[in-house]
Amino acid sequence: MSEVLIVGSVALDTVETPFGRVGRALGGAATYAATAASFFTGVRMVGVVGEDFPEEHLDFLRSRGVDLRGLERVPGKTFHWSGRYVGDLSQAETLATDLNVFADFNPTLPEAYRDTEYVFLANIDPELQRNVLRQVRAPRWTACDTMNFWIAGKRAALLELLEQVHLVLLNDAEARQLTGESDLGRAAQQILQGGPQAVVIKKGAHGAALYTEQPGESFPRWFSVPSYPVPVVRDPTGAGDSFAGGLMGYLAATEDLSEPNLRRAVVYGSVLASFNIEDFSLNRQRTLTREEIEERYEGFRRITAF
Amino acid sequence: MSEVLIVGSVALDTVETPFGRVGRALGGAATYAATAASFFTGVRMVGVVGEDFPEEHLDFLRSRGVDLRGLERVPGKTFHWSGRYVGDLSQAETLATDLNVFADFNPTLPEAYRDTEYVFLANIDPELQRNVLRQVRAPRWTACDTMNFWIAGKRAALLELLEQVHLVLLNDAEARQLTGESDLGRAAQQILQGGPQAVVIKKGAHGAALYTEQPGESFPRWFSVPSYPVPVVRDPTGAGDSFAGGLMGYLAATEDLSEPNLRRAVVYGSVLASFNIEDFSLNRQRTLTREEIEERYEGFRRITAF
Repeated sequence: MSEVLIVGSVALDTVETPFGRVGRALGGAATYAATAASFFTGVRMVGVVGEDFPEEHLDFLRSRGVDLRGLERVPGKTFHWSGRYVGDLSQAETLATDLNVFADFNPTLPEAYRDTEYVFLANIDPELQRNVLRQVRAPRWTACDTMNFWIAGKRAALLELLEQVHLVLLNDAEARQLTGESDLGRAAQQILQGGPQAVVIKKGAHGAALYTEQPGESFPRWFSVPSYPVPVVRDPTGAGDSFAGGLMGYLAATEDLSEPNLRRAVVYGSVLASFNIEDFSLNRQRTLTREEIEERYEGFRRITAF
Repeated sequence: MSEVLIVGSVALDTVETPFGRVGRALGGAATYAATAASFFTGVRMVGVVGEDFPEEHLDFLRSRGVDLRGLERVPGKTFHWSGRYVGDLSQAETLATDLNVFADFNPTLPEAYRDTEYVFLANIDPELQRNVLRQVRAPRWTACDTMNFWIAGKRAALLELLEQVHLVLLNDAEARQLTGESDLGRAAQQILQGGPQAVVIKKGAHGAALYTEQPGESFPRWFSVPSYPVPVVRDPTGAGDSFAGGLMGYLAATEDLSEPNLRRAVVYGSVLASFNIEDFSLNRQRTLTREEIEERYEGFRRITAF
């Protein structure tokens, strides 16, 4: 059982969907990922919040056993994202991005964090992701996320980062943007050639695919998992980060980096993402239990077995 | 081991994709479905061709053991479809549809066909689909396909047909168009309420989903299968009909209509569709063997098992 280090944004989100609206609710990539991972193992979180960040959110993260020594509180306001989903909720329309204290985010890891072996670098500037990674003494498994903004604007830094991580998670549009390949299998193959041992392509309602390079095999090994048919998707915000956190938490807990265990980790990631979208912010996670997670993991087996 | 009756278009197709072009090649929904089904069981085919239909195509179908007593040859030209695929080949652009002899298609089943228990009504006017179905004495399992044109233009006839079939196959856009539901699970649920016991929603590169109504269960049972990662998709024409033919051929061969066997049938349908798109027209099927089919069926297990 190993712990996992999670670095990324902590935010207050204002989100509107056909099912309602929340104002300045708990959000941020690191928050979603840390909470998801906390169902499997101990989590060390790195981020920054402003003076306005409600103490109750810190209490929630503490109640999930998240180590907050790496979460700085500085003068100013917390990162605020405002967005809206319409129609089938497949795409967010950003209404406002107020970086606030997050604009100067360039974390120094607490000494106690530097021996963590499992590291998730949530979506931030790839130069910052590399700065963080340099501070980790002997990472055993590093994963990173990214976004269209960095693929377009910090491509060189991102490609250098990919040489240093074991797993990259990105969505289908990002995989196509990064590689210029419309076919996701070929996109994944190209990404694997750039360094990582594994690629997860997240496809929203169409599930996720894992591609891994295997010694002695000329094609990547491929694993596909559908999305779970939750009765009502209320708010997709944080699904990708919940996925990554669940995946990394499970990997760190099991300390097994074999391809079959990576598959299980991808399913656990899908489980956490599926719970996350059932309610706004991290509301579903407040009552979620490990038993519910195991039940839905078996549910994934039921909808895919033949 | 039961036989399967397949009714639909037989065509000469002119198709262009980024990988090449074929002119007046063998095509048509019934042709693709019959060929796919013929790998599992005996097939009785109903269709119409004109005087220009090459004898070699009939020889091919005969070589696959397809019973052609229901295939009429009449004065005039064979149905000709011309289309083009660009980009990721996910959508065909129709350049020409010359119905020719197919315009007057209204088949009378040969007496020897009327006892067939497994029936696939490929995409034609739903009124014709019902006319055919009326001529089958005691169908045990009837499946139908349809398309946007009939959903918009012959909605009432289509809904009546759906009351009489066991399985409907349609693609994601058609499922949404038919029901007005953007969520495919809810769309499937609504379709099941209209009559069929099972719905298959085909999602192209995103695979397929099977929804079945189960006595005593308030939600449909759900099964998801991804598409197979073929190295190069050369021509997607006929994928949906190959899927339906493979599914129906396997069901008729096994005569097992349980939900677990429907899942296996959906995977065999996916297998046949995946081979079909590897080459133009039915070219891949000319060399395809049952051993290759079984191998790829196991391949589906490898990419989905966890």
